[in-house]
Amino acid sequence: MSRMPAQVRDLIRDLPDSKIREVSMNSIGKEGMIALWFGESDEETPSFVREAAKAAIDAGETFYAPNSGIEPLRVEIKAYMERVYRRDFDLNRFTVTASGMNAIMLSFQALVDPGDNVLVVSPVWPNCSETIRIMGGEIRPVGLDETDGAWSLDLQKLFDAADGRTRAIFVNSPGNPTGWMMSEDQRDAIMAWAREKGIWIIADDVYARLVYDRHHAPAFIEIAEPEDRLISINSFSKSWSMTGWRLGWITAPPALETQLGKLNEYNIAGPTTFVQHGGVAALRDGDPYIDGLVERLRRRRDLVTQSLSRFSRVRYTQPDAAFYAFFAVEGMDDSLKFALKLRDEAGVGIAPGIAFGPQGEGYLRLCFASSEQALSEAMERLRPYLDK
Amino acid sequence: MSRMPAQVRDLIRDLPDSKIREVSMNSIGKEGMIALWFGESDEETPSFVREAAKAAIDAGETFYAPNSGIEPLRVEIKAYMERVYRRDFDLNRFTVTASGMNAIMLSFQALVDPGDNVLVVSPVWPNCSETIRIMGGEIRPVGLDETDGAWSLDLQKLFDAADGRTRAIFVNSPGNPTGWMMSEDQRDAIMAWAREKGIWIIADDVYARLVYDRHHAPAFIEIAEPEDRLISINSFSKSWSMTGWRLGWITAPPALETQLGKLNEYNIAGPTTFVQHGGVAALRDGDPYIDGLVERLRRRRDLVTQSLSRFSRVRYTQPDAAFYAFFAVEGMDDSLKFALKLRDEAGVGIAPGIAFGPQGEGYLRLCFASSEQALSEAMERLRPYLDK
Repeated sequence: MSRMPAQVRDLIRDLPDSKIREVSMNSIGKEGMIALWFGESDEETPSFVREAAKAAIDAGETFYAPNSGIEPLRVEIKAYMERVYRRDFDLNRFTVTASGMNAIMLSFQALVDPGDNVLVVSPVWPNCSETIRIMGGEIRPVGLDETDGAWSLDLQKLFDAADGRTRAIFVNSPGNPTGWMMSEDQRDAIMAWAREKGIWIIADDVYARLVYDRHHAPAFIEIAEPEDRLISINSFSKSWSMTGWRLGWITAPPALETQLGKLNEYNIAGPTTFVQHGGVAALRDGDPYIDGLVERLRRRRDLVTQSLSRFSRVRYTQPDAAFYAFFAVEGMDDSLKFALKLRDEAGVGIAPGIAFGPQGEGYLRLCFASSEQALSEAMERLRPYLDK
Repeated sequence: MSRMPAQVRDLIRDLPDSKIREVSMNSIGKEGMIALWFGESDEETPSFVREAAKAAIDAGETFYAPNSGIEPLRVEIKAYMERVYRRDFDLNRFTVTASGMNAIMLSFQALVDPGDNVLVVSPVWPNCSETIRIMGGEIRPVGLDETDGAWSLDLQKLFDAADGRTRAIFVNSPGNPTGWMMSEDQRDAIMAWAREKGIWIIADDVYARLVYDRHHAPAFIEIAEPEDRLISINSFSKSWSMTGWRLGWITAPPALETQLGKLNEYNIAGPTTFVQHGGVAALRDGDPYIDGLVERLRRRRDLVTQSLSRFSRVRYTQPDAAFYAFFAVEGMDDSLKFALKLRDEAGVGIAPGIAFGPQGEGYLRLCFASSEQALSEAMERLRPYLDK
């Protein structure tokens, strides 16, 4: 009997593996390793959130939930968004998702037909691009420019990259890995341009609250009208230290409520029911936690900056947002190889810039959401490699 | 400034809404309603599973997990599969997923290019077909035949439906909604045919253990070689009463481990970490629970059968597996309308047959995984509509 080898679609076979995972693989939890590779705080989820989830488990919240999320969570999301952005939102604009990642996948399933293209402000977390690829779309990276370690966006470059098949632009501001933050002027200009062209904006707003020079980052959702072609993506992972919970939300035009509900149903049928109750507590009681987290992160950023700014091979300006130091290393032309070397020789886990697209080559990304003690030790270990 | 209305892909816009949700919408939890519409037991998740998840929350299992699932869960899945199917499996064949639904989505993302077709043994739970559609694939339903309420598959009809673009066949046995169970002979014949043609088998095995005349249902995974083009899908929802947890797993050829890991990463980055620890307890300690559940379900099935077999308008044979009564109603030509009437007049929530494809019209699906008291009351309420 003949048998053909097990094979997936060419497009899936060719999907790049995460190069962050390549560095971390088999080394997670390794004795003595200082792991700064993932976009994850070293803090456990705050106890008031954990207790709420446990109480929901005890209360028997173990059954299927509605497609758009449980009502109490949607209500808390609405209250949170109104509190942060000081404007009104209707409840039908919110869909609960099983993580920010899942929200990105649902968005591109909703929007991208094979052959459509999406402009992606880069370098950026690779996962968003891969979802476009899975749906048969074309990714068009639009590079941020770096000067003395600071990142900026050339709007004309963005606008020029669009054509008749451009369905959406993906903007992650504050951005992973660069920490780049869109200005209010740029936000207004992009919004006006996208409106006129009928192009969707997918705004990855997961770092909106991890900002060091103001209360929250400038966001399209602050100025958009309900019917604008805007999908704002949010996540509980970063601001409430809930990475392992897989919980996020989408804010979209009312017309998309039913569509996103269907896509939730056909992708996963909504996030874990009692996890959603944890989300209720996070939003209701979590503002002081975020304030404290931002203060801790600010100290950690400053600590890392103090070292990096003294290392002779490093080009870097500290970011005003997110929790990454993304810095250039003079003479490093293979960031993956260099990251593996740092892992194996120095015992410091760092993400290679190439993980964030070709434009990221020459850079390294260090997540500074770890204890000051771990960061100090990491900087000591990195010194011989970065300061010579 | 011009503005275009918010619009998704035509294909997503046209995606049918779940007609089960259409009946249940706004009526979930309604006073006095006996809800038998979802494929969900009325039992809370057993306490040993809930306690394990709570302990994991206390232990700080709130961080990102590996793409293929946490190691202890993969090890327990391997032990469970070896216990049930009495053969060896390598660990690299298992990928943990955020529900059976999510496993179906990942599978079709891996396999279906636009224009490919998938044969789907029908009537069937609608969600699997919709994932094919989202990926731009064509669904080819292959109808089961019903005689006196019993369902059977004509193999020749299945084989004849394939052509050069047939990428996979989707077999849900034991099946939702019909309770149809593939025989061992049919399993062997389909496996041989699919091997020869190089066609993938996607086996939705989520009801494999809810069987009343033997230990487990005949399954492709019992006879397949590791390299066979077979994806077996499983879920914690039904056998361990964990619908709201969103946890499942895939058993696939080793060659797919990396591919499915990537797709997990780009869809959701894996299910909730502490939920996976609940899964460990379910598999390790859950065999007696399943035995007890099957006994309870058997009594409930018999109770429902006793009534249905006496109702003059009903054509029905009790199934040997799953937890649904799927029965024809004489003279009913609009099952959605009829289900809405039963909901509004009798206070009984039932899924309309049309929810499972055109071939389901003329039928109703009643989930009998509820208490005997609720089922007795439901049958009394249904009598005036089904027995006249």
